[in-house]
Amino acid sequence: MIMTLTTTPTIATPALPSTGAVRPLGLGEVVITGGFWGDRQAVNRRGTLAHIAHWLEREGWLANFDLAAEGRLPDGRRGREFSDSEVYKYLEALAWETGREPDDALEQAFRGTVARVAAAQEDDGYLNTKFGRDGQGARWSDLEWGHELYCLGHLFQAAVARERTAPGSDDGLLAVATRAADLVCAVFGDGGIVSVCGHAEIETALVELGRVTANPAYIEQARLFVERRGTGTLPEIEFSSSYFQEDVPVREAAALRGHAVRANYLSSGATDVAVETGDTELLDVLAQQWRTTIARRTYITGGQGAHHQDEAFGADFELPSDRAYSETCAGVASVQFAWRLLLARGGSEYADLIERTLYNVVATSPSEDGTAFYYSNTLHQRTPGAPADPDVVVPRAESSLRAPWFSVSCCPPNVARTLASLASYVATIDDEGLQLHQFAPATVRTTLPAGGVALTVSTAYPREGEIVVTIDEAPAAEWTLSLRVPAWAEGATVTIAPAGGTPTETAVAPGYAEVRRAFRAGDRVVLRLPLAPRVTHPDPRIDAIRGTVAIERGPEVFALESVDLPGGADVADARIVADAPLADDDGRVGATLTLHEPDDAAWPFGAQPRAGGARRVEASLIPYHEWAQRGPSTMRVWIPREG
Amino acid sequence: MIMTLTTTPTIATPALPSTGAVRPLGLGEVVITGGFWGDRQAVNRRGTLAHIAHWLEREGWLANFDLAAEGRLPDGRRGREFSDSEVYKYLEALAWETGREPDDALEQAFRGTVARVAAAQEDDGYLNTKFGRDGQGARWSDLEWGHELYCLGHLFQAAVARERTAPGSDDGLLAVATRAADLVCAVFGDGGIVSVCGHAEIETALVELGRVTANPAYIEQARLFVERRGTGTLPEIEFSSSYFQEDVPVREAAALRGHAVRANYLSSGATDVAVETGDTELLDVLAQQWRTTIARRTYITGGQGAHHQDEAFGADFELPSDRAYSETCAGVASVQFAWRLLLARGGSEYADLIERTLYNVVATSPSEDGTAFYYSNTLHQRTPGAPADPDVVVPRAESSLRAPWFSVSCCPPNVARTLASLASYVATIDDEGLQLHQFAPATVRTTLPAGGVALTVSTAYPREGEIVVTIDEAPAAEWTLSLRVPAWAEGATVTIAPAGGTPTETAVAPGYAEVRRAFRAGDRVVLRLPLAPRVTHPDPRIDAIRGTVAIERGPEVFALESVDLPGGADVADARIVADAPLADDDGRVGATLTLHEPDDAAWPFGAQPRAGGARRVEASLIPYHEWAQRGPSTMRVWIPREG
Repeated sequence: MIMTLTTTPTIATPALPSTGAVRPLGLGEVVITGGFWGDRQAVNRRGTLAHIAHWLEREGWLANFDLAAEGRLPDGRRGREFSDSEVYKYLEALAWETGREPDDALEQAFRGTVARVAAAQEDDGYLNTKFGRDGQGARWSDLEWGHELYCLGHLFQAAVARERTAPGSDDGLLAVATRAADLVCAVFGDGGIVSVCGHAEIETALVELGRVTANPAYIEQARLFVERRGTGTLPEIEFSSSYFQEDVPVREAAALRGHAVRANYLSSGATDVAVETGDTELLDVLAQQWRTTIARRTYITGGQGAHHQDEAFGADFELPSDRAYSETCAGVASVQFAWRLLLARGGSEYADLIERTLYNVVATSPSEDGTAFYYSNTLHQRTPGAPADPDVVVPRAESSLRAPWFSVSCCPPNVARTLASLASYVATIDDEGLQLHQFAPATVRTTLPAGGVALTVSTAYPREGEIVVTIDEAPAAEWTLSLRVPAWAEGATVTIAPAGGTPTETAVAPGYAEVRRAFRAGDRVVLRLPLAPRVTHPDPRIDAIRGTVAIERGPEVFALESVDLPGGADVADARIVADAPLADDDGRVGATLTLHEPDDAAWPFGAQPRAGGARRVEASLIPYHEWAQRGPSTMRVWIPREG
Repeated sequence: MIMTLTTTPTIATPALPSTGAVRPLGLGEVVITGGFWGDRQAVNRRGTLAHIAHWLEREGWLANFDLAAEGRLPDGRRGREFSDSEVYKYLEALAWETGREPDDALEQAFRGTVARVAAAQEDDGYLNTKFGRDGQGARWSDLEWGHELYCLGHLFQAAVARERTAPGSDDGLLAVATRAADLVCAVFGDGGIVSVCGHAEIETALVELGRVTANPAYIEQARLFVERRGTGTLPEIEFSSSYFQEDVPVREAAALRGHAVRANYLSSGATDVAVETGDTELLDVLAQQWRTTIARRTYITGGQGAHHQDEAFGADFELPSDRAYSETCAGVASVQFAWRLLLARGGSEYADLIERTLYNVVATSPSEDGTAFYYSNTLHQRTPGAPADPDVVVPRAESSLRAPWFSVSCCPPNVARTLASLASYVATIDDEGLQLHQFAPATVRTTLPAGGVALTVSTAYPREGEIVVTIDEAPAAEWTLSLRVPAWAEGATVTIAPAGGTPTETAVAPGYAEVRRAFRAGDRVVLRLPLAPRVTHPDPRIDAIRGTVAIERGPEVFALESVDLPGGADVADARIVADAPLADDDGRVGATLTLHEPDDAAWPFGAQPRAGGARRVEASLIPYHEWAQRGPSTMRVWIPREG
């Protein structure tokens, strides 16, 4: 079912298509009230935003705008060519966060930062601290690596977030964005430069800016960028043209490839363009690319990107655990792509992947206090890393513990903007009713065609599998409440408990459990998902993890960390007795392992499989997102099977 | 046994220690007369050297010296910061090749190139086309990445090769080298710059230049560089200080780490320093580092370097097949390190690794006609690559077929100098006799303490396992002929067949089979090595190849290539029936495989191990070094076991 939606710019959500299978709910409609994600939103608000502000100042990335305004650049400019974008992502996070719950200090931080950014904008709308001045590269002279359009994309997304959370605000950010967007259209539109940015991002941002300002020119410019991609308008680079998806046109590709963040941002933008232009052929292609990418190029965590060298997808089934790049930002971008397909097409598979990625990539990156981050999210740590110095910038991905800041620091503000806008991904509506995609304690209040509806979600998910939806307000007519049943949830049930009536329980299959009735206030619908720990086997074509299994429980992937092994044992020595029972132990999973004595040889390849003494032990596995919170350790998600 | 050797500079060999367990034989003493390596030497001489000359001119790397001589730099300089070194490696290859067998054209090429290089040298001895002029970086201003000392190291090695193959030649290269080396000693000696080069190489080169010129100042400078390494004299870089072995001092490291070529060149130089300074403690440490590196960080091919990103060693047992970097130059450098340990200490394990690396890395790189090369040597090719354009320079390692030239083109001339000097690695002598380390049709003529000895080696190795050593000339007294029995050669025999006498056969164990007697001309000693194909299992801690086996035959590792599979099947679908008999088929190995139907799923991780239909087929495996000679294909060395 494709419905035509009448969108209003005041729905506070990052992606608001003018048409689609379902319509997203904004921050004003869904409020996460606690639990796993509520805690993380609180840490994000309380800890991460100030942390980011501190480092943006400390590293001079904000001061670059001051220098630009004062005409002092290029002297003194600090940071990489894309550092402006971190400021914009920070602004976007502030916009969602103040939209979620107003706060004077956050509002001041937002306005102050906008003022510094706006002061650096040039008369014709150009805005970038790295290009265009005497002593700098000329504007648009380095499209393959310069990130000018990429940075503007993040600027536009910040402006969209602000306009959707504070419509008509006098801070001026939307005007800054539209002036820059108008310049982009003039420079890169018909008759202008026929090329694209080496890092896709502006495509999805232009569409959203077009949606929020009702300006079709921006959407047309996004369409041009999408159609040009893969036609060879960028020069060759050492990583090959697939790195920035210039190897083949978007509609001819079989799967996502190249740099994983670029690939997902591009796919998000292409989906946006397809939706706004009614290009169902393109949408079909993108959905197929997504399916192939999920089937062959995605980690069990939802992480994407197998290569450190180029932060890129590998070949099909090339998914090494120990060199998993699984960049945090690729997880964020993958959520955006899947979400746009869900809005356009519907389908629990998209929400399944979003959930998997949120719990196992996005939640893994930040430390408990939200002031240190993983840039890449390995699935196998072979050597205990030294603790990161909380006062030192580290390179992008080589640290084995979370680090406070990176020389390429895209991930912290990307996590921040995602957590601040997370309520957007919880539920949608369509003509028939409301769909609950993600499970968190929340209140939902929106208007269906049948009338206003309000409900409360209560749950201790993912620790517990019971999700209770209480109807607080409902129209008199029938409507459908759809609850996602994750693909792993074999044996799930839905119980309908009418206010004052007799509950009835029904078995439900993975997909969406649809409850259609004329609800009354006080009615409850209870989804029960089986959360017993389970053993998961990989496709045999994933060479890197042949002969291993992983442990999962609900949406969480588990990990074996050396600090949970007896007396100095290392995860390299551990195998799992895969048919022994697993214990469900207050958020941990107890497993039976064997620990093997290292049996060193001068040459590790021989005529016989190498055996060695082994002892049997019981050990706890922890949720992967909790790893490396207890000092240097080794860790593995995929554990070799004993025997 | 450590003997003191009286070396003479006319022994034409790359490494000539003043003391050691054994003394190398030079190109004048060992001549490879045909067979596997003789063929490759002929291709190298006939095809590769001219190919390199063509590309050095075409890319302007030779012309850089002309521009320098004409005072026109930096305008027009082409190539990376280390391009001078490719010219020097080419010179070294020419020196060995003309020393092996004189040729007017090669001699002219050598002299012409030396003249152009010499003309670029500055008055104080400085020689580098990338630094030191107006508009260039200052001399020694970029030790971490500038490669100035690295380039000079290759210059010194070329001069050493020339002086050892054409002593006292009037071409002037040795004087160029010593002037440059004197400058290095002045600038980096006591009281000078206390630092090292980001790419080790000059250490081993300075020692050799010191040996050939009998100048202890060069050896002392090498010692200073070795001792400074790991003390933090270079700035931090993104790849971390282990990249250029600056993380810990040489004598405190546990294994080779960081960039694999740098690590092996450094270890070679440190071995040279240890030998010349009598530093047995350092030598012990290096031997232990070598053992650990071989046991935990080396591919079955002998290849080293598990990371594409930084061309570096991974952690212990991190040896992915599909992302094996195994740089050709790392193989060359590993041979140099192992050879120096062999000379210093003796031991068949060093010759075993050299053989493995020569057959499976060095021989794999060049195409059959010696005009295209692998830069990296993957053990698993997942997708068929496009054929490399013979007219196009490619980036260093991303091509899946051999390429004619690289923007970083260290490997072609490194292979060329190795093949041209290969006879050096065949045999050694000591007070007791002669040791045959590598097997090739050859003539050997040298002088033992007991008197002159000459012998002929006849063999079709590695196709056949019989190595016949015929004594052509021998002293009257007893001496010992030692024949290496490779570690894999369980069941080897040695037959002593005195001229006109009765042969006697003896079983010999891996190590060296020692035959001590008063040989007479016409006596034959026959080593028979069992060459049945064998199944090899990996250490279970090598995660990337768990559940797989490799096939080997003699020193050759075998590979399954898709072009040998029936009807479009891919190596991804193949498993090996590891207990089925292997057929030895004229250089190929016949194996029983099962081919599995791809069974695609939306999500590749599930509650059950995925099964699928399979059919049994017989297929041939080829020697790994022969792969990718028949067009685009997929390939794997490690094959999953059926069942």
